[in-house]
Amino acid sequence: MADGQINAAIVGASGFAGGELCRLLLNHPKVKSILPVSRQELVFERVHPNLIGSGLNFASLDEVYAGRVPDIVFLASPSGRAMELAQKLLDIGTRIVDLSADFRFPDPVQYEKVYGRRHTAPELLPSAVYGVAETNRSDIRSATLVANPGCYAITAFLGLLPLYENGLADSASLLHIAAINGTTGAGTTPRSEILHAYAYSSMLPYSLDGHRHAPEIEQSLSIAGGQGVRVDLTTAHGNFARGTHVQASVPFDSSALSRKEMLDLYTDRFKDAPFVRINTQVAQGGKTDKDYGRYPTLARVIGSNFCHIGVDVDTERSLARIVSVTDNLVKGAAGSAIQNMNIMFGFEETTGLRAYGL
Amino acid sequence: MADGQINAAIVGASGFAGGELCRLLLNHPKVKSILPVSRQELVFERVHPNLIGSGLNFASLDEVYAGRVPDIVFLASPSGRAMELAQKLLDIGTRIVDLSADFRFPDPVQYEKVYGRRHTAPELLPSAVYGVAETNRSDIRSATLVANPGCYAITAFLGLLPLYENGLADSASLLHIAAINGTTGAGTTPRSEILHAYAYSSMLPYSLDGHRHAPEIEQSLSIAGGQGVRVDLTTAHGNFARGTHVQASVPFDSSALSRKEMLDLYTDRFKDAPFVRINTQVAQGGKTDKDYGRYPTLARVIGSNFCHIGVDVDTERSLARIVSVTDNLVKGAAGSAIQNMNIMFGFEETTGLRAYGL
Amino acid sequence: MADGQINAAIVGASGFAGGELCRLLLNHPKVKSILPVSRQELVFERVHPNLIGSGLNFASLDEVYAGRVPDIVFLASPSGRAMELAQKLLDIGTRIVDLSADFRFPDPVQYEKVYGRRHTAPELLPSAVYGVAETNRSDIRSATLVANPGCYAITAFLGLLPLYENGLADSASLLHIAAINGTTGAGTTPRSEILHAYAYSSMLPYSLDGHRHAPEIEQSLSIAGGQGVRVDLTTAHGNFARGTHVQASVPFDSSALSRKEMLDLYTDRFKDAPFVRINTQVAQGGKTDKDYGRYPTLARVIGSNFCHIGVDVDTERSLARIVSVTDNLVKGAAGSAIQNMNIMFGFEETTGLRAYGL
Amino acid sequence: MADGQINAAIVGASGFAGGELCRLLLNHPKVKSILPVSRQELVFERVHPNLIGSGLNFASLDEVYAGRVPDIVFLASPSGRAMELAQKLLDIGTRIVDLSADFRFPDPVQYEKVYGRRHTAPELLPSAVYGVAETNRSDIRSATLVANPGCYAITAFLGLLPLYENGLADSASLLHIAAINGTTGAGTTPRSEILHAYAYSSMLPYSLDGHRHAPEIEQSLSIAGGQGVRVDLTTAHGNFARGTHVQASVPFDSSALSRKEMLDLYTDRFKDAPFVRINTQVAQGGKTDKDYGRYPTLARVIGSNFCHIGVDVDTERSLARIVSVTDNLVKGAAGSAIQNMNIMFGFEETTGLRAYGL
Repeated sequence: MADGQINAAIVGASGFAGGELCRLLLNHPKVKSILPVSRQELVFERVHPNLIGSGLNFASLDEVYAGRVPDIVFLASPSGRAMELAQKLLDIGTRIVDLSADFRFPDPVQYEKVYGRRHTAPELLPSAVYGVAETNRSDIRSATLVANPGCYAITAFLGLLPLYENGLADSASLLHIAAINGTTGAGTTPRSEILHAYAYSSMLPYSLDGHRHAPEIEQSLSIAGGQGVRVDLTTAHGNFARGTHVQASVPFDSSALSRKEMLDLYTDRFKDAPFVRINTQVAQGGKTDKDYGRYPTLARVIGSNFCHIGVDVDTERSLARIVSVTDNLVKGAAGSAIQNMNIMFGFEETTGLRAYGL
Repeated sequence: MADGQINAAIVGASGFAGGELCRLLLNHPKVKSILPVSRQELVFERVHPNLIGSGLNFASLDEVYAGRVPDIVFLASPSGRAMELAQKLLDIGTRIVDLSADFRFPDPVQYEKVYGRRHTAPELLPSAVYGVAETNRSDIRSATLVANPGCYAITAFLGLLPLYENGLADSASLLHIAAINGTTGAGTTPRSEILHAYAYSSMLPYSLDGHRHAPEIEQSLSIAGGQGVRVDLTTAHGNFARGTHVQASVPFDSSALSRKEMLDLYTDRFKDAPFVRINTQVAQGGKTDKDYGRYPTLARVIGSNFCHIGVDVDTERSLARIVSVTDNLVKGAAGSAIQNMNIMFGFEETTGLRAYGL
Repeated sequence: MADGQINAAIVGASGFAGGELCRLLLNHPKVKSILPVSRQELVFERVHPNLIGSGLNFASLDEVYAGRVPDIVFLASPSGRAMELAQKLLDIGTRIVDLSADFRFPDPVQYEKVYGRRHTAPELLPSAVYGVAETNRSDIRSATLVANPGCYAITAFLGLLPLYENGLADSASLLHIAAINGTTGAGTTPRSEILHAYAYSSMLPYSLDGHRHAPEIEQSLSIAGGQGVRVDLTTAHGNFARGTHVQASVPFDSSALSRKEMLDLYTDRFKDAPFVRINTQVAQGGKTDKDYGRYPTLARVIGSNFCHIGVDVDTERSLARIVSVTDNLVKGAAGSAIQNMNIMFGFEETTGLRAYGL
Repeated sequence: MADGQINAAIVGASGFAGGELCRLLLNHPKVKSILPVSRQELVFERVHPNLIGSGLNFASLDEVYAGRVPDIVFLASPSGRAMELAQKLLDIGTRIVDLSADFRFPDPVQYEKVYGRRHTAPELLPSAVYGVAETNRSDIRSATLVANPGCYAITAFLGLLPLYENGLADSASLLHIAAINGTTGAGTTPRSEILHAYAYSSMLPYSLDGHRHAPEIEQSLSIAGGQGVRVDLTTAHGNFARGTHVQASVPFDSSALSRKEMLDLYTDRFKDAPFVRINTQVAQGGKTDKDYGRYPTLARVIGSNFCHIGVDVDTERSLARIVSVTDNLVKGAAGSAIQNMNIMFGFEETTGLRAYGL
């Protein structure tokens, strides 16, 4: 990067997150070249027709090893693949942002418990940094291996952070998170149930026996101050392609904090976080029922790296209610990965990510 | 009803629930005539273009009092209106199914607390019957005033009933219900936030300071066996016009009951309930992750009076997870109302309601 | 059918049209039994979860031949299969409604030209009746083999019929039909491009080198009076699962007929057609621009066997503009098939099909 | 613009196009300040919640006149307003891009005929430049008043240009264009028919007596080489918020040009147009039926300034079939307007507009 620009490779570039990395990096002023890697023989413009004319074509992994060493490799392959590839990639001198779950748990036993397979690169876990800029910025800066957070995990975590960080949530009580994801979260493998004709206008609940992002959220909230918190995460796909919508109910002392005070707390907490925005609107005409403008809405962050957060208080049940929304492919995947890359290479954190939601 | 057929009137017939009552009653073999009442001067076929050619036209309320007494009046007006009208209608000798919240709470103080207005017909409350056929069939039969349940309330209640009825849920712990409703739940009054261009592809959270159906669910579960249960109901509109999707997490002893045993319990509980169906599918190929076919999906009940229910167990967190789906305008409103009417008049309970979901 | 009830079998019952036949026949008062046939080994309630609890299970074709002869067999298999099966089925004494294209063209050469395969049962073509009740009711009554029309074809044909029948359209000029279909029209075979994540919020144009329903429409309009008319049919899937939306521009003498007169013509033409409804609304407040209530809208016929039609006149270009909408799985497939069955067996034409759109 | 940066004002900034101008200009490196003007007293972050944190607030028009003269004013108000404001704005020394129809027709009589109101600033018409960069780049560069094209108009025009420009289309025959627009095209004024609950999953046809963009397309194709061409434009809103989908059937000599040759022609024509991309994919596995990847799909351009174009040939009917898609708020409105601004001020044409579709 003599000229201040870097070269990037993307492994798993035919998937949704991989395609989104291409889309965003193509307009990143500090990225000189992009090498999209796919194991299948595919025509790039068929797989990602939104990028027609970009000039990108799929390469094989061999080309990553054979050619000029990329400054950074994004691993956007299914969980299990990153731990196979990481050491070899580090050995050639590149840095890694892994979008899979392989390096999110420092404890390989926990990984095995959650993902049902033995971790094959436990020696790399101590050096892996959990890639949430809003809490780990300085560790990310020097990391060679960043574990990008799950889409549900980062959306929920940002929405909940100020309460747990400040000891305002009751960590001994179950934290309930209801999360809805777009169908891009279901992957690219064609299956009946995710055909448009079936999934359209529907809701597809899944993982009701326990979702893998729950332990990830438990871990990050515990570190942030919510020692030992237990998370009930319930998930479904909604009728949209992109987006993660999170509603959470946090047990807390509702006499201690009004909605107004919560909004102030959140606004202050994220004043230096360029991609977190708090919806502070008050009820219009004093009428709160169905005043949809008081809370963030999913469609407004789509296409952007923003996380919008709204809050309210149910005094009757002593609950703080949180709404937190992101684009699951941007802040929930590729956008966060690039934000991490920006930090790792000393670029302005928002470089290439400033687009507002649609 | 000398000929075994009855006459029906619908107050508030220009709204979504009122229109759905028209749609369903037009093909009800026991209903001879339908009088749709609206306060505004509207052209019926403009308001309900799906019913072009039905021959229905809006009448004024005066015509209900002036003409032949209807055997039944459906009140589909906003909450607050039914308690104004009920006594006068009962006086002329009709029976009532009220789709608003006015007669759902036996206690007028509770009504005032939840709906923020004094109850003006408390003397009618003792005789009002809560219209859930699956638990109150015999009371409904003889009722003159039936309080039709809220759409979230009945969908959640049916999904939770077997656990609370059998003492399997821990009623001392908070019950968490995440519910998504179609935009027909937002009413017919034009407002910016519910324009298609804004609400499309989005999620619209609302009532995060506490939703009015929570106390209604608390009340019915308490009666059913879950004495004193507290409900955390969190609500949003999803990107569909019709439907109520409920996911609940019930604190319970997960060592006591497997998914298979829960399915048996549910199947048995609802064996005589013609509109409740349990999804008992097991994992295909032994693979449970993202096997969407194991749980009910919203689109499959749309247009029908069915409630589909699915269950699972999170042993890690000792939670029963429930999914329960209905068409908010049918089982969640007009369909239940007609089911109640069928019972009140001694018709076969499924008359006019047998259509399967799309 | 000693008791006035009949037995039905459905070949290709795992597809969308086959499932819809099951859905509708389950509530048909004249149908005693339904035998859904599928070549694959599938669990019925997984394939058609909307019909959970119906008691139906897939059978093999052998059971149709081995058991009691069905009074009627619906062929809902892909084009090419019906012509293999028809003779054998007729031989056992059943009657047939074929939902594929195999018997729509009397001329086997035309079939081969359009569908790219030789017709293997040309001897049956003379006896096949094109199943549009609105023009062929009496032929259908006595038919043993009915060719159910294509979804685009019937929707367009009904919308255009009065103009061509009355010599009002200029048959020498190209007739332009722009048609949008739901994604159920793309079939049940999983493929990338029709995954929800890809097709959502999009339009999928196809067959731009010529759609197979164009010659079908040319044929039926020619018979109806538009001798030799040439049809430009342009097609795409829209962002909905069900429905066929047709907009057509008919070259005609716009000084001869006003919108009002066209509406009268249409209303009169279809006064005995129980499933065709004309939207005769006039502009509200005299304002015609974007007065969406003046034309039929697709969502209003979904779930029903209705075809809604609207008309207007572009005097500047001497064009009649037609909008015609149906549910592609009902009036465009299973509903028409049952309507044909009703006529064939002397049942009231609307039996089992009276549901209004949602 | 001593520092090479400019100041912009947006009149009508509370509408969809106005909001999109704000969204895009906020990240335009050459725009120093943005003044969003609205006549109503509105809270900016309520109207455009996607821009929370942007720091923008609505101003009154007076502030445009009173403060520093903006280098450019975008007029995004309803048709009729621009011709009231233009002269006064030009007088203070600003340049104008008008997104309304007021300056699209050089002939005021034509304007009056199409828009039903007398043109009040006919003296400005001679100097107004029609803002399609792909044909008028050099005129735009020196213009003080640019008339931004209509969303249907530019999408159709780009898709048709090469055929008319090269005399390949038969201009004497009617050109048929079927166009579908997102519901943002219906404006922000709340009305029943465009509520999500009504418009969802539907199609809303409108202006069937003749759409105002037809004469606009006739005019630009005539200038481009299709002298006197007559356009049959048929329009509807589809079930999406953003996007313009155009399918056109062009009468031409289909023996003269194969699909392959048309693709070459188009690719060549637009080789210097940074925002026009041709889908040149061939059939996969030789199978053309329902090979959706061969044509552009709407969702792939959303959020971008790209126009994707696909072509095919119907030899049977001697028609060229064109598909052309844009985001109606970007290339169809705000994006084109900014592209014009870039040209007017000598910026790189793609500045601030390089984002790829989602």
